Amino acid sequence: MSTELKKPENCLIVIFGASGDLTKRKLMPALFELFCDNMLPEQFVVLGTSSSKLSDDEFREHIRSALSVKTPDPENSIDKFLKKLYYISADFKDPLRYEEIKKRMYELGGCCGNSCNYIYYLATVPELFGTIALNLGNVNLSDQSNGFSRIVVEKPFGHDLGSAVELNKTIQSVFKEDQIYRIDHYLGKETVQNVLVTRFANGIFEPIWNRNYVHHVEVTSAETLGVENRGAYYERSGALLDMIQSHLLRVAALVAMEPPSSFDSDAVRNEQLKVLQSLRPIRFEEVNESAVRGQYISSKIKGKTVKGYREENNVNPNSRTETYAALKFYIDNWRWGGVPFYIRTGKMMPTQVTEAVIHFKKTPHYLFSKAGETNSRNSLILRIQPDEGIVLKFGMKEPGSGYKVQNVNMDFHYKDLSNLHIPEAYERLLYDSMVGDSTLFLRADAVEAAWRFIDPIEKAWKESHDIKIYGYPAGTWGPEAADSLIEGDYQTWRYPCKNLAEDGVYCEL
Amino acid sequence: MSTELKKPENCLIVIFGASGDLTKRKLMPALFELFCDNMLPEQFVVLGTSSSKLSDDEFREHIRSALSVKTPDPENSIDKFLKKLYYISADFKDPLRYEEIKKRMYELGGCCGNSCNYIYYLATVPELFGTIALNLGNVNLSDQSNGFSRIVVEKPFGHDLGSAVELNKTIQSVFKEDQIYRIDHYLGKETVQNVLVTRFANGIFEPIWNRNYVHHVEVTSAETLGVENRGAYYERSGALLDMIQSHLLRVAALVAMEPPSSFDSDAVRNEQLKVLQSLRPIRFEEVNESAVRGQYISSKIKGKTVKGYREENNVNPNSRTETYAALKFYIDNWRWGGVPFYIRTGKMMPTQVTEAVIHFKKTPHYLFSKAGETNSRNSLILRIQPDEGIVLKFGMKEPGSGYKVQNVNMDFHYKDLSNLHIPEAYERLLYDSMVGDSTLFLRADAVEAAWRFIDPIEKAWKESHDIKIYGYPAGTWGPEAADSLIEGDYQTWRYPCKNLAEDGVYCEL
Repeated sequence: MSTELKKPENCLIVIFGASGDLTKRKLMPALFELFCDNMLPEQFVVLGTSSSKLSDDEFREHIRSALSVKTPDPENSIDKFLKKLYYISADFKDPLRYEEIKKRMYELGGCCGNSCNYIYYLATVPELFGTIALNLGNVNLSDQSNGFSRIVVEKPFGHDLGSAVELNKTIQSVFKEDQIYRIDHYLGKETVQNVLVTRFANGIFEPIWNRNYVHHVEVTSAETLGVENRGAYYERSGALLDMIQSHLLRVAALVAMEPPSSFDSDAVRNEQLKVLQSLRPIRFEEVNESAVRGQYISSKIKGKTVKGYREENNVNPNSRTETYAALKFYIDNWRWGGVPFYIRTGKMMPTQVTEAVIHFKKTPHYLFSKAGETNSRNSLILRIQPDEGIVLKFGMKEPGSGYKVQNVNMDFHYKDLSNLHIPEAYERLLYDSMVGDSTLFLRADAVEAAWRFIDPIEKAWKESHDIKIYGYPAGTWGPEAADSLIEGDYQTWRYPCKNLAEDGVYCEL
Repeated sequence: MSTELKKPENCLIVIFGASGDLTKRKLMPALFELFCDNMLPEQFVVLGTSSSKLSDDEFREHIRSALSVKTPDPENSIDKFLKKLYYISADFKDPLRYEEIKKRMYELGGCCGNSCNYIYYLATVPELFGTIALNLGNVNLSDQSNGFSRIVVEKPFGHDLGSAVELNKTIQSVFKEDQIYRIDHYLGKETVQNVLVTRFANGIFEPIWNRNYVHHVEVTSAETLGVENRGAYYERSGALLDMIQSHLLRVAALVAMEPPSSFDSDAVRNEQLKVLQSLRPIRFEEVNESAVRGQYISSKIKGKTVKGYREENNVNPNSRTETYAALKFYIDNWRWGGVPFYIRTGKMMPTQVTEAVIHFKKTPHYLFSKAGETNSRNSLILRIQPDEGIVLKFGMKEPGSGYKVQNVNMDFHYKDLSNLHIPEAYERLLYDSMVGDSTLFLRADAVEAAWRFIDPIEKAWKESHDIKIYGYPAGTWGPEAADSLIEGDYQTWRYPCKNLAEDGVYCEL
């Protein structure tokens, strides 16, 4: 991908699920930001559709409340942007209604300008993804003879390997793979992409980025919130599917992948696929030693009693859905043979943080005091959010006579690049879908490879009542049992703080 | 060396040159600091001696003005410390006077407490070093049968290879090598020692610390001052001897040395010696291509006219003494074969800075834009003074679509360890001489190896009038000709700023 950013070709985006939360909270603000940055096509139209009965103007007013400008807006950008939005209501299961949608698309400038470029953005419940794709095919909207036709599919992509394969088959019966853009908004995050730049734009990391120097890799995504009002959704998902299958495995793949031959989207995705295909399978009967699940229970945080998961709205009082999941696994290839990877995620943790940490091995010979030995470990922390940045933990000489080694941090904070606006993930992904760069979207093979790895764990957790689900008090770092996953002399997970400056301190709420 | 700091055994220090500048400005404040930190021996006496006629009390008052306490001093530490000082005048060339010195030493507690431990600190002009050593030998003061006897020799150690060999021979005729402590106050600096800790307490630097990954190494010591009132001294020395022979070659040796087998003083010094012995000789006729010398000329700095070197007091108006010296050389061993090392030093430079910089090679394959290519170099800056610390320059993703790489700094500042007092070099070195740790002192073989390397350059500069001495305006980074030393596509030296935060900016006064 070039660093010269071109304006996308003219196009029309149809958003399915236009009255929903995602459209309002994420897609529209992202499109508006692109609009303000003059990064939308010259001629650009959004056609929103959902089951709600709304006029164009009602739809616009619904969206208006989600948009804001930071500075005085003499040019009325919000009004100008809203004029590009249109609406049509539809029952997505009704094939006939797609003719109406098509008609409306043609009316709205038909082929915008000289090109007939269409993007279908599926922001609906996942059960409708296949149906919508088939219905679009029925009215020939996947045709590319007069311009491009792309389908953007939101997550979750399937709920297990079988359903993901099925969904791929359905969509691919209408759209070719290079027309399909499967969203993982994590991959749209600047700091996630920066994992690749850190690794491949610098000569100093790659030589030590392998089994000879790396002791283990840790990926953490912790949330301080509980399930809030999403109990019903969460009951069907759980931490493993909600975070690990969908996002964190891919973060691990970015950390672990080989350098691609170019930054071409398939070159990059081929390397990620190779990692996912190299995951050593955790078989049903091995799940107990390689994975730990937990569920937050009621506790007091800063003197205030907080609910346990089973007491949340729309949650089964005997629920065995995990709100915490931790995995240990291996990547069976030359670079990573024998290096354990650890992934954990949880709700109601002490701090909100997502990070990947490369823990390096100890020096092969320790020259300084025995007392300092435990301090001699280096680690590189790729902080994805918040306080995005990178921290290198290393040993320095403590001032004074002798050679006492003290662990210190060398750090860089993304926010110090203060002249630059850090775009939201959706801004990046929407732009990429318009210019046809699918690097940050999931390819069918990668989705299936991730499911293939997760499926036995998910099955074991569902089916085997021998596998414990540990309670952990809300506001703690999850069940202690998770520490038993950690190999060798490290013994615990890292307890990162929200603020990098306090890093290394165990942060309790 | 253990991290447990022990109090040294009781001892008596005889300072030769006690009324001089070094004693007052450096040695006494350092001893006083050790005193306040309770790091001096239980029983401890200083006997100062020089040609000046002073009573004990006059000597104490002379020293008092150099001591200060930061906080209120209810315990009168200054008075208590001064009581430990005594004085005897002496003509150091008069052998008979040493019997008097010896007598006075024995009176002052003779063998302090139960041990007869003596340290002779030669803070005189270098011409007297040999004489004093011989005279001490004459009265048997080098004898160690009742305790230790050590001689600390200030710099400069010789003025060329021949004189250094001669001086070693003279001193070694009286003292054994393990009784001799040759000072290089640079090695006493915390941040210089930290080069070793950075390299050998961390597993991540060593794998890339070699010819495979390092493009070149740069050592800089820049001063903003001119020769001030030291014109007469400087005329006989020059930048090459004053800084490079005596200090910077050793900084380069710390950067380049192999890991020692232990932190035992001879183990460490053996490795440094190996580096000095591996320096590829620059022969007389090669000096012109491997070294550049300069002399500051009058210029305006911030609107104020400053003198050129030849206009300074006690400087020959036709002087060919260099105030700037730059060298390129190679270390012919397996680790560094083919990697150029650059050392420069100068007076009247734009900023005061001493640093060693490891410039790493570019990535073997550049994945991102061509435009960013020049930005893709990593370097590690070991900042020795001021703003002591360490900076890693590396590429990060510039926020926004595409993959634009921006060079950023990840840094650590020694001063952030604010709870800790950074001891002065002399504190460390005096303490080490008392406890008998010679790691940070120069061994005879290393001194001679450094001279062996420097001698042909010094000779060529003295004798060959074909070799230009370039004028450079005071307040600039030295002669442009020095850039011609730099190999390959780097083309210039680094222009470091005083303040790390502004690093990368060319700082002009």
